[in-house]
Amino acid sequence: MLSVIAVKLPENSYEIAIAPGSLTQLGSYINKLNLGKKILLVSNPDIFSHYGEIALTSLKDSGFDVFTHSIPEGEVNKTLDSIAQIYDTALENYLERSSTMLALGGGVIGDMTGFAAATWLRGINFVQVPTSLLSMVDASIGGKTGVNHPKGKNLIGAFYQPRLVLIDPQVLKTLPVREFRAGMAEVIKYGVIWDGDLFAKLEGADRLDDIAYLSEELLQIILTRSCQAKANVVGKDEKEAGLRAILNYGHTIGHAIESLTGYSVINHGEAVAIGMVAAGRIATKLQMWTQEEEIRQNHLIQKAGLPTKIPTDLNSEAVIETLQTDKKVKAGKVRFILPTQIGKVTITDRVPSDLIREVLEEIRI
Amino acid sequence: MLSVIAVKLPENSYEIAIAPGSLTQLGSYINKLNLGKKILLVSNPDIFSHYGEIALTSLKDSGFDVFTHSIPEGEVNKTLDSIAQIYDTALENYLERSSTMLALGGGVIGDMTGFAAATWLRGINFVQVPTSLLSMVDASIGGKTGVNHPKGKNLIGAFYQPRLVLIDPQVLKTLPVREFRAGMAEVIKYGVIWDGDLFAKLEGADRLDDIAYLSEELLQIILTRSCQAKANVVGKDEKEAGLRAILNYGHTIGHAIESLTGYSVINHGEAVAIGMVAAGRIATKLQMWTQEEEIRQNHLIQKAGLPTKIPTDLNSEAVIETLQTDKKVKAGKVRFILPTQIGKVTITDRVPSDLIREVLEEIRI
Ligand SMILES: NC(=O)c1ccc[n+]([C@@H]2O[C@H](COP(=O)([O-])OP(=O)(O)OC[C@H]3O[C@@H](n4cnc5c(N)ncnc54)[C@H](O)[C@@H]3O)[C@@H](O)[C@H]2O)c1
Ligand SMILES: NC(=O)c1ccc[n+]([C@@H]2O[C@H](COP(=O)([O-])OP(=O)(O)OC[C@H]3O[C@@H](n4cnc5c(N)ncnc54)[C@H](O)[C@@H]3O)[C@@H](O)[C@H]2O)c1
Ligand SMILES: [Zn+2]
Ligand SMILES: [Zn+2]
Repeated sequence: MLSVIAVKLPENSYEIAIAPGSLTQLGSYINKLNLGKKILLVSNPDIFSHYGEIALTSLKDSGFDVFTHSIPEGEVNKTLDSIAQIYDTALENYLERSSTMLALGGGVIGDMTGFAAATWLRGINFVQVPTSLLSMVDASIGGKTGVNHPKGKNLIGAFYQPRLVLIDPQVLKTLPVREFRAGMAEVIKYGVIWDGDLFAKLEGADRLDDIAYLSEELLQIILTRSCQAKANVVGKDEKEAGLRAILNYGHTIGHAIESLTGYSVINHGEAVAIGMVAAGRIATKLQMWTQEEEIRQNHLIQKAGLPTKIPTDLNSEAVIETLQTDKKVKAGKVRFILPTQIGKVTITDRVPSDLIREVLEEIRI
Repeated sequence: MLSVIAVKLPENSYEIAIAPGSLTQLGSYINKLNLGKKILLVSNPDIFSHYGEIALTSLKDSGFDVFTHSIPEGEVNKTLDSIAQIYDTALENYLERSSTMLALGGGVIGDMTGFAAATWLRGINFVQVPTSLLSMVDASIGGKTGVNHPKGKNLIGAFYQPRLVLIDPQVLKTLPVREFRAGMAEVIKYGVIWDGDLFAKLEGADRLDDIAYLSEELLQIILTRSCQAKANVVGKDEKEAGLRAILNYGHTIGHAIESLTGYSVINHGEAVAIGMVAAGRIATKLQMWTQEEEIRQNHLIQKAGLPTKIPTDLNSEAVIETLQTDKKVKAGKVRFILPTQIGKVTITDRVPSDLIREVLEEIRI
């Protein structure tokens, strides 16, 4: 099984290749790009222990000179200081303009490696080998790279496109189940905002809460359609002028929940799941969406082992306040992405605060 | 007097405006770009003491909210750490995607402010107000931004275009004379590699070693033609694929001299001057250039108060060795830009080491 998605951009188009077992072919995939011989592979110790050797062997077999750089696991290490350390390794190994930085890891490793590649020698080649479901279907596509500022997430960064995204679904077997579910939240999002067929395929599955229950075929479809959805949206709006906003479905309230719970108790995917439930509810109440479709969405979210209710200790007023101070809020208007039918959304900043409050109260545990 | 040069690029074209006294009009120039209201002005204490108030007043009069950030003077401060400090100020003042970072200073301030603008929120607006001759005719044009790595110059950076370059020639009055001459080296370079008319205009001047002797008209011509030359070259080769290499005329041996003298005794412009003398000599010896034109070039260099001889304590073998380890050297071949007639150069990697050695010995003090 091999799916190839072409990401077409005015400059720097590239391909996303999705194929089980492809990690063992990494070297030959990169060989086709005609890049320089030096590759700096960036990963974290845990991921490297699982997949480092496979990747290294394949790259070396294809004749590449490979160096490695390891960054300790976790979002706390997504810092400018970690980037400075990648630079040091790049310098030590004499990376050139024609050399490549390769990210082997989840979104944290991908975002950082991309930013280092974007800024070393004013830009060297970059290859993504995403290993978490979230990074496969979301973080590795679209060219956003960067790190956190001590006072805010993803404030430092660059738009920089990879030369290749290589997805081997088999690496998901070692992904912690909660991380898998978090990625499923984004998959369901694509079904609701863009791809009704994907949504239907997800509905057809018995279980979605653990990769162990997914057939290789369904997983391939999920990855391919999700990547295609993001690539389509991003291809139409590379620098976030308009359309790309629909990718924030579920993220408006989701971000507020993440921020209020200190990015710890509830992870990103879980927050997005609750955010989609809330947005769906709002859409139904505004008579933009049918209750029947809303129920279908929420059923999928539950089937993926994701929460559909706001934790009791979260105050609705606090959520509304956080919404209003979000950096994306223009002139006090909170922007919502609301579904109108499965596969279609609309953007609006005309949701009354009272309605948001009402919905938040309704979906409380 | 107002000259406007359009820098045409596939994306992100912009204008260079050159006009005496234009610093007092800074606000209205930026107003025309329809950017957001917030501007972060970045400068160093000395330049700010000369021109900060003028710039601030003009910006505020045009209705902008202006914040300032100061970086201590000097190349030693062109570091990732200084960038992190710009980020902090950007965050404190809630800069948004629509906000602008404005560089008021020489190449050091310009390179850093540009890099910060390129990477804050993945890219906000950037405006250049270069204050040194070198930054006016060279550093502010072409989109190269960045900082030094502790072990190498300009290794960290991004290609990022400004929205506007505003040049007020009058600020050059306070520029130390040695800095002025360093900038003249690049001006003469443009005359040799691209613009024979500019070369002739320079030959027509009585003195070129101090701005006090230049008429306002000649200065305007020098700035306009130099910027035009760089803009032309860069416009044809934004990302340094080929043509842009001709801007390195005089820089091959120049860089070696700078590096061997530890970037202290001899400044960049002086090293480039010596490099042009050497390259010119090589071209004549290879019978690619006439001795007459070579003499005319060297005469101009002297008239600009720039050195034409290699300092005695610099060993020719050391220069040749440094040439060979330069990061731009491919497969041991040193690439030279050689003049064929005033206004035209050619690129070659076929200069025998013996010839380089011979020339280095000849131009020794
Ligand atoms: N660039 C973008 O467009 C974009 C989009 C969404 C999210 N992001 C960023 O992505 C990050 C989140 O990505 P993430 O969810 O992948 O987090 P992550 O990179 O921290 O990975 C999650 C956890 O799973 C582990 N892991 C990953 N793959 C594994 C595997 N195959 N086997 C075993 N363990 C594995 C990681 O070590 C980590 O502990 C955030 O920093 C976020 O800002 C970026
Ligand atoms: N981005 C590019 O394409 C490019 C090209 C060439 C050079 N550069 C970079 O530019 C830097 C060199 O630029 P530079 O020569 O302008 O150095 P600089 O910025 O250090 O300025 C030289 C000195 O002049 C002072 N100065 C500047 N303008 C003044 C004024 N009007 N009045 C009084 N003092 C003034 C500065 O404070 C400084 O002390 C280097 O870091 C180099 O790497 C970049
Ligand atoms: Zn998300
Ligand atoms: Zn130069």
